[in-house]
Amino acid sequence: MAALKAIAMADETQVTIADALEQWTQGRRDEPAYATIDHERTTRTGFPEVIFCPGKSDQQIAEIAAELARTATVVMATRASQGAFEAVRVRLPQAVFHDEARIIAWEKQALPRVGCVAVVSAGTSDGAVAAEAAVSLDLMGNNVSRINDVGVAGLHRVLNHRDLLNNANAIVAVAGMDGALPSVIAGLTNKPVIATPTSVGYGASFQGIAALLAMLNSCAVGVSVVNIDNGFGAACVASRINHIAAKANG
Amino acid sequence: MAALKAIAMADETQVTIADALEQWTQGRRDEPAYATIDHERTTRTGFPEVIFCPGKSDQQIAEIAAELARTATVVMATRASQGAFEAVRVRLPQAVFHDEARIIAWEKQALPRVGCVAVVSAGTSDGAVAAEAAVSLDLMGNNVSRINDVGVAGLHRVLNHRDLLNNANAIVAVAGMDGALPSVIAGLTNKPVIATPTSVGYGASFQGIAALLAMLNSCAVGVSVVNIDNGFGAACVASRINHIAAKANG
Amino acid sequence: MAALKAIAMADETQVTIADALEQWTQGRRDEPAYATIDHERTTRTGFPEVIFCPGKSDQQIAEIAAELARTATVVMATRASQGAFEAVRVRLPQAVFHDEARIIAWEKQALPRVGCVAVVSAGTSDGAVAAEAAVSLDLMGNNVSRINDVGVAGLHRVLNHRDLLNNANAIVAVAGMDGALPSVIAGLTNKPVIATPTSVGYGASFQGIAALLAMLNSCAVGVSVVNIDNGFGAACVASRINHIAAKANG
Amino acid sequence: MAALKAIAMADETQVTIADALEQWTQGRRDEPAYATIDHERTTRTGFPEVIFCPGKSDQQIAEIAAELARTATVVMATRASQGAFEAVRVRLPQAVFHDEARIIAWEKQALPRVGCVAVVSAGTSDGAVAAEAAVSLDLMGNNVSRINDVGVAGLHRVLNHRDLLNNANAIVAVAGMDGALPSVIAGLTNKPVIATPTSVGYGASFQGIAALLAMLNSCAVGVSVVNIDNGFGAACVASRINHIAAKANG
Amino acid sequence: MAALKAIAMADETQVTIADALEQWTQGRRDEPAYATIDHERTTRTGFPEVIFCPGKSDQQIAEIAAELARTATVVMATRASQGAFEAVRVRLPQAVFHDEARIIAWEKQALPRVGCVAVVSAGTSDGAVAAEAAVSLDLMGNNVSRINDVGVAGLHRVLNHRDLLNNANAIVAVAGMDGALPSVIAGLTNKPVIATPTSVGYGASFQGIAALLAMLNSCAVGVSVVNIDNGFGAACVASRINHIAAKANG
Amino acid sequence: MAALKAIAMADETQVTIADALEQWTQGRRDEPAYATIDHERTTRTGFPEVIFCPGKSDQQIAEIAAELARTATVVMATRASQGAFEAVRVRLPQAVFHDEARIIAWEKQALPRVGCVAVVSAGTSDGAVAAEAAVSLDLMGNNVSRINDVGVAGLHRVLNHRDLLNNANAIVAVAGMDGALPSVIAGLTNKPVIATPTSVGYGASFQGIAALLAMLNSCAVGVSVVNIDNGFGAACVASRINHIAAKANG
Amino acid sequence: MAALKAIAMADETQVTIADALEQWTQGRRDEPAYATIDHERTTRTGFPEVIFCPGKSDQQIAEIAAELARTATVVMATRASQGAFEAVRVRLPQAVFHDEARIIAWEKQALPRVGCVAVVSAGTSDGAVAAEAAVSLDLMGNNVSRINDVGVAGLHRVLNHRDLLNNANAIVAVAGMDGALPSVIAGLTNKPVIATPTSVGYGASFQGIAALLAMLNSCAVGVSVVNIDNGFGAACVASRINHIAAKANG
Amino acid sequence: MAALKAIAMADETQVTIADALEQWTQGRRDEPAYATIDHERTTRTGFPEVIFCPGKSDQQIAEIAAELARTATVVMATRASQGAFEAVRVRLPQAVFHDEARIIAWEKQALPRVGCVAVVSAGTSDGAVAAEAAVSLDLMGNNVSRINDVGVAGLHRVLNHRDLLNNANAIVAVAGMDGALPSVIAGLTNKPVIATPTSVGYGASFQGIAALLAMLNSCAVGVSVVNIDNGFGAACVASRINHIAAKANG
Repeated sequence: MAALKAIAMADETQVTIADALEQWTQGRRDEPAYATIDHERTTRTGFPEVIFCPGKSDQQIAEIAAELARTATVVMATRASQGAFEAVRVRLPQAVFHDEARIIAWEKQALPRVGCVAVVSAGTSDGAVAAEAAVSLDLMGNNVSRINDVGVAGLHRVLNHRDLLNNANAIVAVAGMDGALPSVIAGLTNKPVIATPTSVGYGASFQGIAALLAMLNSCAVGVSVVNIDNGFGAACVASRINHIAAKANG
Repeated sequence: MAALKAIAMADETQVTIADALEQWTQGRRDEPAYATIDHERTTRTGFPEVIFCPGKSDQQIAEIAAELARTATVVMATRASQGAFEAVRVRLPQAVFHDEARIIAWEKQALPRVGCVAVVSAGTSDGAVAAEAAVSLDLMGNNVSRINDVGVAGLHRVLNHRDLLNNANAIVAVAGMDGALPSVIAGLTNKPVIATPTSVGYGASFQGIAALLAMLNSCAVGVSVVNIDNGFGAACVASRINHIAAKANG
Repeated sequence: MAALKAIAMADETQVTIADALEQWTQGRRDEPAYATIDHERTTRTGFPEVIFCPGKSDQQIAEIAAELARTATVVMATRASQGAFEAVRVRLPQAVFHDEARIIAWEKQALPRVGCVAVVSAGTSDGAVAAEAAVSLDLMGNNVSRINDVGVAGLHRVLNHRDLLNNANAIVAVAGMDGALPSVIAGLTNKPVIATPTSVGYGASFQGIAALLAMLNSCAVGVSVVNIDNGFGAACVASRINHIAAKANG
Repeated sequence: MAALKAIAMADETQVTIADALEQWTQGRRDEPAYATIDHERTTRTGFPEVIFCPGKSDQQIAEIAAELARTATVVMATRASQGAFEAVRVRLPQAVFHDEARIIAWEKQALPRVGCVAVVSAGTSDGAVAAEAAVSLDLMGNNVSRINDVGVAGLHRVLNHRDLLNNANAIVAVAGMDGALPSVIAGLTNKPVIATPTSVGYGASFQGIAALLAMLNSCAVGVSVVNIDNGFGAACVASRINHIAAKANG
Repeated sequence: MAALKAIAMADETQVTIADALEQWTQGRRDEPAYATIDHERTTRTGFPEVIFCPGKSDQQIAEIAAELARTATVVMATRASQGAFEAVRVRLPQAVFHDEARIIAWEKQALPRVGCVAVVSAGTSDGAVAAEAAVSLDLMGNNVSRINDVGVAGLHRVLNHRDLLNNANAIVAVAGMDGALPSVIAGLTNKPVIATPTSVGYGASFQGIAALLAMLNSCAVGVSVVNIDNGFGAACVASRINHIAAKANG
Repeated sequence: MAALKAIAMADETQVTIADALEQWTQGRRDEPAYATIDHERTTRTGFPEVIFCPGKSDQQIAEIAAELARTATVVMATRASQGAFEAVRVRLPQAVFHDEARIIAWEKQALPRVGCVAVVSAGTSDGAVAAEAAVSLDLMGNNVSRINDVGVAGLHRVLNHRDLLNNANAIVAVAGMDGALPSVIAGLTNKPVIATPTSVGYGASFQGIAALLAMLNSCAVGVSVVNIDNGFGAACVASRINHIAAKANG
Repeated sequence: MAALKAIAMADETQVTIADALEQWTQGRRDEPAYATIDHERTTRTGFPEVIFCPGKSDQQIAEIAAELARTATVVMATRASQGAFEAVRVRLPQAVFHDEARIIAWEKQALPRVGCVAVVSAGTSDGAVAAEAAVSLDLMGNNVSRINDVGVAGLHRVLNHRDLLNNANAIVAVAGMDGALPSVIAGLTNKPVIATPTSVGYGASFQGIAALLAMLNSCAVGVSVVNIDNGFGAACVASRINHIAAKANG
Repeated sequence: MAALKAIAMADETQVTIADALEQWTQGRRDEPAYATIDHERTTRTGFPEVIFCPGKSDQQIAEIAAELARTATVVMATRASQGAFEAVRVRLPQAVFHDEARIIAWEKQALPRVGCVAVVSAGTSDGAVAAEAAVSLDLMGNNVSRINDVGVAGLHRVLNHRDLLNNANAIVAVAGMDGALPSVIAGLTNKPVIATPTSVGYGASFQGIAALLAMLNSCAVGVSVVNIDNGFGAACVASRINHIAAKANG
């Protein structure tokens, strides 16, 4: 029986095999044919499955959201359009739409916000990605500090916010073009920096590849990287770190 | 005077401007012409400057190591050759060489090992990168669990180690070729996963690009990525996370 | 005379040179100027020529379809638009349109469905490519099992369908992003896995290159790969395998 | 208990959970620290784990080979050097070395050779990859037909071998440079073609990328592709197909 | 004075320096500010400057066409839209529009058509590029044979046209996807083959890169390559060859 | 206090720390939340911050422009749309729109135009990028010579303008496609050439990569390169050079 | 019987089917197992099969050369080493080695040299590729003019050789780095230019990709391109052109 | 006669056509066959032709150096080996070898050193490229300030050298890995920054592509870029700028 436990267990909540099978069976009852909902993801990884909207119809998004809402306390859909939001709202009237962040959110019960994560952006054009990170972090139960438009062409701008950086348990650093901001930040602090390249730029930015490569090659230590424009992914990493720290503190 | 403080200060140790300038001045005294040693990096980021050996002569490596040893408690050189080690040992007789990890280490005073980081590799061929991560983590003051050769072609191998994974504060997942291991691990735990692609493979692995891209596009959450073969970089991120958690626990 | 026979002959049906020339001459009678219909493709390869719509006008598609229908029992057009379907229906009123799969199909006489092929997708967003594979397989005379949305972020989802996988003669595994699903499946079965990368994703997925490379570098054996989003191509390979197995069984 | 069965079971051989655990426990007894041998891979996928030599020391290769030989009937190591062979021979004196194919093989008991797979190469320079495929197929229990040096610059060369092609259950087509051979072959037969690009060429062949891309974009149907120079991988796919057909025939 | 002669002279028509300067001065009289018309290009290279439309406004195209028409006997504009044609027709009422080829043409006096060039396409979807080549060749004074839709998936289709191929002085071979057609043609003839990749395809065709690379790596000799979709460029090369042969024959 | 001075000081204007802090504090008063205006950039680098429009809403652009206009003598916004211009004009009625160059400009007080920079383009299609360079140079206080449509297919065209080239202090050379113009120009003069690749072209021009690479590999000396289509960036480099020369001359 | 004729016939020499079969049968008599000699290639394409040495052992090269020498009047091997030459000389004592060109040549009877082809190189470092082209052209029966080291950084150098360029029937233009030379040459003449990129350069030349792309995007007309460093391929194209012209003249 | 003047003239030195022709004729007298020396390059561009060693034999390098020394006051060879130096010294005994910079230099008469250029490197491993720039600048007659090992991971290091930066007329900024240094420097000064990426790094640095792209996408203005590792090229640009400024000052 060890193997099923391996799959279904989480490090904090003891679930029996019987519990897991029951939960799984119930989860599948009304599941649409095109989707296999992972209802026990919270148990395993600490947060419910999140809907990635591109490639799904508005109707599919709404159905999956409704299905998830049966067992989850928070339902999130990323890269969402206004149309998807309208469809979700029919099924989940309490849902809200964060339009800069393009996130549909429905909270049965808001998670407590703990610790702190800083979200720093290099330019105003990076705002949508930073917003995706910040809204995601908020919904996942983290306190968030936002610092906007402090790219390295004017170094004093980021230096002015050093206290905010050092008070966070993790720093999400969002930048396009030359992607230099995370290197500079990581040289100023001892906190893990999650570098988030954006597709802002043109020509040889190659839709964010230039920033991605710069970040992967950071000459400063303590930097790891997520996919281009992946504010949500950066938030997931930062939230895991912040919750470990917060729990330890608690 | 705020700005200098911005540059020189760290979040835990109060240094005065005078201290910083004095330290800087002393640091520069015997510095070789081709290098500008960053003696205050410990103060700022929690660990001394580390020597990246490629492109430096054995003599340069030895001189920089000796210079760093004046103020640091640990001196590390990565991607080191046996020849570089011989040169360093002339200057720092207590230095040791971890040959699988290709790391020269000199510890004036070993840091206390705290918390736990798991280092997981997909295949035996990924061993050198995993070793670089593990030795670096050890020198940076972390307890380390190693799990070797548990790639996804035989899933039960990683499932058997789920307890080790869940007991760590961070997981370094090392894989080449298809780079699938971090996705699987991140789906089984709520800990941050630092995915470390390796250049193991041939043909369309493109010296690790295939694994790097797979990891950047992980369908599981909680994954961030470092450069190909960058076991040291993964260790730095994991160590920052582990120390935040350990301090919180302490 | 051996060479013409080399070109025109198939491994099961004996055709004389005279037959081949006659068939060829008839085939060309009403052929439009912009196309050279390959009427004898069934004889040579077991299935008629299929129309790839992009770059052809609706009118051209309809004319080629009508021309093919003179000698073929099944006419298929892939990557078709609603407009192309309208044009085809004028010429072939029995044609039907599978819109998720974007396939126009006209069956003079449905082929018998034999054996079994499993079509597995990692996410709901991969649905269109999986549908293209499944509809193509059906039209080519194969029984099909579909398993949707069982990506590796929740391993139990694919493990629950192991019986379906092992009952198939071939498995089409459709995934975007990290492309990890085929590696996991190939490690669980002894059947050939046709990995089908999709362009689902963003940023460093590079329209499916990440998934393509991961699949080409699978650490599990028994995996071969088709072009990105090429559900039709995967179906052709799987159908050839399934028909060999089914014939052998019959 | 279903989940463990999911992981450990194969479609043909009934193993009890107890069997699997026992086998696993025994398998681990003498396992070296850097490797986690997958002793039950035969049960799951029909063939034992194969050693990929690059990145492993000769000593590691020999130890893993010896460990595998405890439970497997065939031990194979690919991309092997003469040095690795010498080391293996100390542990397994019956091992042989196929030098063009760079394969070390040890057969406790040769598998019966069934069905037929054709291995076709475009040029003499593609010989090493074709040899890797052919030797692997032989060791995996397949009859093999080899056709060498029949590239498309002289079409009559491949046309002369059409009978061999049509008598096989699967065709491994090996080509570098323009990678055109698989398209031509797939247009002449109804058998699945496993296209195997090689790194033969220079300049814009980009170590086999040109051939890889040409094969992924084959205008003929029935073609799937493996990694550049991956004769072993092509053999694994072809062997799975051939065994399904042979079993069906038997 | 040798240098100006070096720049302005052509190999067949003797022009004096005075002629050249006079022609140049006249040419510039009504030239628009944004363009520097190369009126003497016919003298130097055998054909007037041709307008490449993308990036130019309809108005600019019309003005340049009118300016060129002052001294040239043929005015051509490639990659033209219907809008550009309307604008040109205002200035040059005799202009005609070849819409499949996207070429605007104005002939003061049609050039004599000499020799023969074959334009061969692999698929119906390659039609627009083949048309651009064929119309360009016609306007440049070449007889043209067109052979459509004879890709390598059905080899007999191209073999049926061997006489047309061997009667041409040069062959333009147009193909997308796997780009295999030029290799096959070059193996059947001793005429120069100008391989013209098209952007037809999807996924790993990378908008024609796959075909381009295959053609650059042709295993047959006598093949040179032009840019993706560059039917006009292929025509220019073929026309130069055909005119050399035709002149020699005359 | 040295460090703040390091950040805030420029090489020509003496500012006290107190001045800088005061300026900074005032600058931040009405700053919008999404932006951190770098009001002292003129002091540090000689020209105010310039607005890069993509990724910003029209409203954001207008607010940042108005905020910048509080302290700057020139406000520029690049890659601007007509909509952005309308929004800016509400806040800054004296703003003008250079539509070919896509630049919004507002000059409180026009800078004196000094020295000379030549802006040379290879083709009419490169006009927009050349215009961006020329308008930027003008607004930054440089005299500008424009030479249009003098690509290397007709060498005499650029040779005719050699005096203009030699009278400039710097040359901006704009070209797409083969990017050969800067090499030719740099071989004719001793002035620094700022090569500016454009995305003009198709197929293997890869949106300007071909021109970019050609320029980076120029066989002539004295050439440096800016990003694809970056007329503004080329202007900034040329303006810095021209002002050094002009000041020296003054 | 038409099809075999299609495969075996050439446009100038009448061969009967019987002749072709007889020739084929004889050709195969002593053929080594790893090669399928294309003895009738001269009949079909005007020149015998040429040996591409990389990936073949010296022994294989010598055997293939000897086999070819049974029916061909010229045997050539390209990219040959001194060792390969020694092996060939044992079998064909009259063979000679052109070491700069890396070509082994054996002429039973030298072909008459006709017409003229110019081989132009941009730099001394491009010499090996230009030599490969020139030696190949010579062996194929062409008169050759060589012009060395006339890159565009000093335009007068190529302008001085305009007569040689205009007297040739085809021009092979060899250049690395920026690849600008073919564009300049094509603008000065009406002869077809076969652009041959070389891997000379470093950094962003990417082993010749920069030059390759520049040539594919030439702004001058009449340019087609062969693979990087492919002097032999360029020679084949030029020889086909030159022979058409020479025959026409004769 | 204008055209020759166009080619041969420089903006400062009046040369008559007769002078130019005479100089050209003399220059060619003893020229080796494989090279076309550009003796008048100093007249045209201000500095003699420089020898790029890779791809040339030691003997060729020595002969070209000796030929250049007949008319030039300075002979330079870059990327030179010790062997090349030995060969040159036989012909030019006064030649010296700068081994870190890999430059052979021979000065008949040292040029006066004028103005100032700063050469700044991010790390000790970038030393060879910085040395190539510094030595080249020195030989071209510029005063040089060197600042080593001041990468952005420790910002204070570059801030400490702001005076040296502001006193230069141009700044060569050398960095590998993340390539962030030029962005930071350009934000601190109003001098043109020539960014020089190096191939230092591994994995996703792609031999300097990461740094190259970061520099092309600098968020700071005033930055232009040269090829990877092209310290010589950066020096040429900086020298042209510095000489314009110095002449203006003089």
